[in-house]
Amino acid sequence: MTDRYLEDFHAGQTFASGRIRIDADRIKSFAAEFDPQPFHLDERAATESIFGGLVASGWHTAAVTMRLLVDSDLKPAGGIVGAGFDELRWVRPVRPGDELRVEGEVLEMRAAKSRPDQGVIKVRTTTLNQHNEPVQVSVGHLIVRCRHSSSGE
Amino acid sequence: MTDRYLEDFHAGQTFASGRIRIDADRIKSFAAEFDPQPFHLDERAATESIFGGLVASGWHTAAVTMRLLVDSDLKPAGGIVGAGFDELRWVRPVRPGDELRVEGEVLEMRAAKSRPDQGVIKVRTTTLNQHNEPVQVSVGHLIVRCRHSSSGE
Repeated sequence: MTDRYLEDFHAGQTFASGRIRIDADRIKSFAAEFDPQPFHLDERAATESIFGGLVASGWHTAAVTMRLLVDSDLKPAGGIVGAGFDELRWVRPVRPGDELRVEGEVLEMRAAKSRPDQGVIKVRTTTLNQHNEPVQVSVGHLIVRCRHSSSGE
Repeated sequence: MTDRYLEDFHAGQTFASGRIRIDADRIKSFAAEFDPQPFHLDERAATESIFGGLVASGWHTAAVTMRLLVDSDLKPAGGIVGAGFDELRWVRPVRPGDELRVEGEVLEMRAAKSRPDQGVIKVRTTTLNQHNEPVQVSVGHLIVRCRHSSSGE
């Protein structure tokens, strides 16, 4: 699939990814560096936490979601450049052995007022586990190049 | 500093962190796993991108922000458990050698309707670089235990 420019996007387009499996070792090593809390680091300590067992850091889930997006068929020209999110929710814990994938939808496409060479697409991304249960939902804004980015408007 | 329960939080409280330096090697290795795009992977390719040079993945910045928060004086009882974010923005690129720190403020504290043993605090967190320029701003909701979580209410 070739890269898509701003003009190639419209509301209602959907996209999807492959799968990534999350294992206990990576849950723990990610957490050791970025989110060192008992429920992400140690099975036994985690059983006494609010989660009742080892769970991935939400930031680990978010990072894996990004990897799934990069490899998905979204493919905006110039890469996936996030300006930010209006919403990011972890709706269900991610546990060792879960296999994550992404489903998404373009909600909106708009030209940038100040920049004739780029625009923004608003995208809802849902990360699902192997039971098709959502684990993360986000609504974000991506910067996308226009096809004729050297045009003078 | 001891852990703080829901009753110990109120709007207007501030918190702060130490510093973490982001180096080029970790920018690239994080990106290789989670965000493999040229502007996060390779200095030369990055000079031709929208960023004009190597920059950290926004998810790397977000993960480092979490680490800064865990080590900050926020210290909610039961750990930092994020329910989600209303807003997450990357307002400025993070470049190799940047030193990040966090400043935050409690915006709101509320009891949970369905759970007498816990509540939610709404928190604005700003991640700043060594020039005191914001690189990331977020507004999130954290689940916090009540002091007497066994009370029958």
